[in-house]
This record gives sequence, C-alpha cells and structure tokens, in this order.
Amino acid sequence: MLIDGARRQSIWPDPEGEGVFILDQTLLPHAVATVLLRDLADAARAIKDMQVRGAPLIGVTAAFGLALALRADSSDAGMAKAAEVLRATRPTAVNLAWALARMTEFLQQMPDELRRDAAFAFARHLAEKDIACNEAIGDHGLALIRAAAEKRNGAPVRILTHCNAGWLATVDWGTATAPIYKAQAAGVPLHVFVDETRPRNQGASLTAFELGQQRVPHTLIVDNAGGHLMQRGEIDLAIVGADRIAANGDVCNKIGTYLKALAARDCGLPFYVAAPVSTLDPALAEGGLIPIEERAQEEVTIMPGLAANGEVVAVRIAPKDTPARNPGFDVTPARLVSGIITEKGVFEASKEALAGLA
Amino acid sequence: MLIDGARRQSIWPDPEGEGVFILDQTLLPHAVATVLLRDLADAARAIKDMQVRGAPLIGVTAAFGLALALRADSSDAGMAKAAEVLRATRPTAVNLAWALARMTEFLQQMPDELRRDAAFAFARHLAEKDIACNEAIGDHGLALIRAAAEKRNGAPVRILTHCNAGWLATVDWGTATAPIYKAQAAGVPLHVFVDETRPRNQGASLTAFELGQQRVPHTLIVDNAGGHLMQRGEIDLAIVGADRIAANGDVCNKIGTYLKALAARDCGLPFYVAAPVSTLDPALAEGGLIPIEERAQEEVTIMPGLAANGEVVAVRIAPKDTPARNPGFDVTPARLVSGIITEKGVFEASKEALAGLA
Repeated sequence: MLIDGARRQSIWPDPEGEGVFILDQTLLPHAVATVLLRDLADAARAIKDMQVRGAPLIGVTAAFGLALALRADSSDAGMAKAAEVLRATRPTAVNLAWALARMTEFLQQMPDELRRDAAFAFARHLAEKDIACNEAIGDHGLALIRAAAEKRNGAPVRILTHCNAGWLATVDWGTATAPIYKAQAAGVPLHVFVDETRPRNQGASLTAFELGQQRVPHTLIVDNAGGHLMQRGEIDLAIVGADRIAANGDVCNKIGTYLKALAARDCGLPFYVAAPVSTLDPALAEGGLIPIEERAQEEVTIMPGLAANGEVVAVRIAPKDTPARNPGFDVTPARLVSGIITEKGVFEASKEALAGLA
Repeated sequence: MLIDGARRQSIWPDPEGEGVFILDQTLLPHAVATVLLRDLADAARAIKDMQVRGAPLIGVTAAFGLALALRADSSDAGMAKAAEVLRATRPTAVNLAWALARMTEFLQQMPDELRRDAAFAFARHLAEKDIACNEAIGDHGLALIRAAAEKRNGAPVRILTHCNAGWLATVDWGTATAPIYKAQAAGVPLHVFVDETRPRNQGASLTAFELGQQRVPHTLIVDNAGGHLMQRGEIDLAIVGADRIAANGDVCNKIGTYLKALAARDCGLPFYVAAPVSTLDPALAEGGLIPIEERAQEEVTIMPGLAANGEVVAVRIAPKDTPARNPGFDVTPARLVSGIITEKGVFEASKEALAGLA
C-alpha cells in the first residue's frame, strides 16, 4: 500500500541482490526508515527486536533470512542451524516455524549448490502467496462492507478495528484491513475507527499510520470508547484479525478484542474476524485451552512517544514500583463472532463450518 | 488516607488561618506537593487547572473558595460575584453548583459581618459530610465484599475498579474505594485490579498511587485486560464510581465502564456502582438522554509521563495530525448493574428501588 504516495510492501528483495529490505517498524509512526538485511544475523535481529512484526510478515522474513543464511553455508547442517537461530527469535510465533518448515522441506530435495537461488525464489513465492491470500480475504470482506453500505444510503460505512492486522503485519494488504482497502478501491465510502490498542499501541502507531498514508478516512479512539460509539449508533460493524482460531470458532486475538465483541453483540452489530485459514488450529478444541502469553510489566507502566524536541522517549505513567499484569491476548467465544473472513470465503464460527478448511 | 505513612485528606484548612491546603493532583503520582489557597483566585485556578478533581472534592473546594472570597468582600454582591467566578471554572460539574448554592443559601440568612467565620464553618461542615457519606458507602459495600470473601476460603477477594473514584476524588475515603479501605481495615484479604483508564490514566496515576500508599495489594492493568481476567476466573467482583445515575438506574461513568459491565455480566460476576445519593438525577428518565462530553483530541494522542531524567514530559503516540475522538463518559444500562452502593444502603438499579432516594 502507499507511503508518501508511493506503493510499498513491508518486505522486498534488493534489486541489486545485496539482500532484503524491510521497514523498521519500531520507528513508526514517527519515522519511515528502510533497513537492508544482508545475512542471517540481520534477519534474526530484525525479528527479535520487532523491526518486523505480525505473524505473516515474521514468517516471510524468516524465509528470506534462511535464504540469506544459505549464501554463506548451504549444507544440510548449515540450513538446520540457520533455521534453529531464526526459530528461537520468537519461539511462540506459529507462522515463523511454519515458514521455516516449508522452506527446509522444499530445499532438502535439492543439492547444496542449487539451494541458494532456489531459497530466494521460494521465499519470494511465500511473499506472493501472502499477498494473494490477503487480497482474497479483502474481496470476500468487501461483500460484507457492501452489504453494510446498502443500509447507509451513501453515507460512509463506519468500521471499528482493533490492533494492527494491517498491511504492515503482512507483506501487503493486511487481513482485517484488506476488506477496507478493497472497499476504498471500489469506491465504497467508509470511515474507520481505530482502537489505540494498549499496551503496545499498535492501533495508534501502525493502523492510524497505514490508513493516513492510504488516505482512508479514520479516527483514533482509546480502547475504552468503542462500546460507547456502538451504543450511540456510530459504528456499523467491526473487523479484527486473529492470532489463532480454535476448531469450534473461538478466536484468540490481541487483548481487548473480547470486550469489543461483547459490545457489538449487545448493540446488535456484526463482529467479523479476518484471517487466513492457516490461522485455524483444528487440533485445538476450544479457545479456553490456549495459554495466554504474559508480557513485560513495563509495556503497561512505560510508554514511548515523540517528545516536543523530536526525540522518541519513554515515559513512566504509573507510580514507581507499581505491579502490573500484561496478558497479550484474549479469547472471543465463537458465539460472539458473526463470521470468519478467509481467503476461501466467509465462514460461520462453528466446528461444523470450519471443519476441513485448514 | 495515608501518604508516606501519614494520615492525609485531599483538602484541609490551614491551622494558621492563612487559607486552605490542597494536594496538587496534576503532579501525582510523580510528586506529592501541597498548595495553599489564599484567596478566590487561587481556589478558582486550582479547580480550573484540575489541581483538584473529582465531583465531591470540586464541590468542597468551591465552598472553601467562597469562604476565602468573603474574607475580602462579604457583601451580597461580593458573594454573588465570587460564586459566579467559581461556577465558571467547571461549568458541567453538578456538585460545584450544588455546593455553591448550599453555601449561598446558608450565608444569605446572616448579616455580612458574621459571614466570614460562618462561611469557613459551613465549608468545613460540607467536607465532614462528604467524609461521613463516603464512610457509610464503605460500610455498606464492606458487607458485599465480606459476602464475596466467604466464597474465597481465606484467599483474597479480587476486585476490579475503573478510573479514580478514590479518596483523592473526595475529601477522604472515596466512593468506589471506600468499601475497599473498610475491608482492609476489617482484615478482609483483598487484591485490587486497577484499570489504567485511558485517556487520562486516572487509574494508573491516582488509584494505583492511593492503593500503594495505603498498602492495599493491587495490580495495574490496561483497560483491554479486564475482560480476559474475568473470563479466566481472576476477578470476583467489580466496583466503580458514577458521575450521574438516571431515574431508571442507568449509570453514567468514565468512558469504558460499559465494557467492563458487559464482561462482568458475560462471566456471571457482580458489577457494583458506589456513589452518594446526590449522584441520582430523578429528573433524568434514562441514561441515553445524557449528553456525553467530547474532550480534547490531544488527551488521546499526547501522553504525559515521567522521563528518565526526572522531568514530566508529554509525548505524542500517534502520527502527526491523526484525528481522534474523545468521549469522556459512557452509560452502563441498569440491566448490567448488580447494585448501587450509597450512604443509605445498597439499592437495585431500577426505577422502583431508586424512587424517593435522592
């Protein structure tokens, strides 16, 4: 999508063959900086330090990271060691392990001397696949937005989203944002309400940035405000992403998603989840079984931002030594989900509807 | 309650007769500073700049402000003018207008020369009344916490609260916190989960400060996390304050309250509102009629905090020029409220139960 009016992706191979470019997302929204990843260490650091984040983008970055590693050592042992280094950067990221497994499986079939070029080609293939998948999610979601538009008589469809399931979390288009960008392209008038998404503020820093650059009309709100706007008739539907979807349709997503799903239900509004079918975990019977990552207390008590002098500084917003809890995700029960928008179509959040999809 | 181990109130007359002391709450939690209000201008500034905040405390500060004004001019005209200046500081604060009306009504009955001493005495009386009212709320709420404790077999009762309906918002004890402090005094083990309460972070900056100083075990969480903790059985009940309660029991309180009430209902947990009966507005049929104050966008996009160098600085957390909406309050429907804890007892949130109370 667009940054400063130019079409960009979140990751792209260097045309000079020096490596792979990424955007340093830790600097967003205050600065747009590209970083060239030249070797395995660069790629591992980019994932670990969250210069790249978002499950699909992490997976593709790991794939390119493995390709970079093979330029130095394309032996079986070298490949296994590189995969191990990359896997350890974000041990709980399912897409990362998946992308590395796919890469390794493919490359093991061929002799060492062919692996270098093949690895790059396969990493590019995974990146293209991600883009195509998200576009398909966008097309299926567009139909839902069109349906909402019919009731608005030409006024903008008002969509709430949470966190950043945007193009910055993928290679392009995003998941929850893909239907929004498709609707914009189709000329459907819309307005997006962006939850800031504490504690890491991905809505305020990334989704608001994306939408602003793409010129999608939007408004930033605190996470507390969405229920009130729904009550007062200022939201038409919600679309969020997902980190993992259980076999019964329970959705694990960024902390706070459950509260918005409750409000949507209470106010009679549709609440959609947009995610590739690879997010489905058929082995997981229901969402209550998902262990929820507890993250650092400092994410709650310390907030980074841009000071008046142009420097990014971290400020403490609670008394010294205040203890904090920081669960990273919550589970929205399937009964609160109006539908799951995937690249294969929109499905009911139920065991029956989701069976056999993944 | 306690600050640095010493018993404090949020406002108290100077024993030397120079004026009235307050805590400058704009500096909390990073510094504890007392300010002496010597005249009308000082008192008006303290209210306007939010050095004092919280409906009950604003009312009592205005009463003392009027008393300070009468030291310079105790004529009818002087009194009317001073009341007008104070009323204009926070035009929507109902308690402020109420306290000034009570003061004026009382003082008009006596000749000018007696007003100076009488005004101070009456302001002290209003402060004492606030304390007694909050203690009574605490005693009634304590019974509810004791009931929850019985099911915990000696383990701490886990209470969620939102925003700061604490002693800093009143003269002492607070409203939502009064049952908590009473339970602590009665030896009931408890643990408080404190919503940080974006955008102004009164939970992180004031409630966490109060509870820490009082040595009540507590944990700070982002507003997104409360629903998840309720789902996973880590909360036993919620107690919040109220800014206004409609005749039918609908509760207007800090933005985000509605979302926690929805989660409590979904998880089968009690959700209590603690407020003096003066918060009831019998003239207001239902909460949907309450106009909701839209506050400055900068409260969403700019965050103040303590930098590493010890200075309080404001940092921007969204892209430049991102538009924001900032509704200050929401309305929790009476059907989601388990009971309203007042100084007169605990009442069902219904037209029938609340009739004649105010």
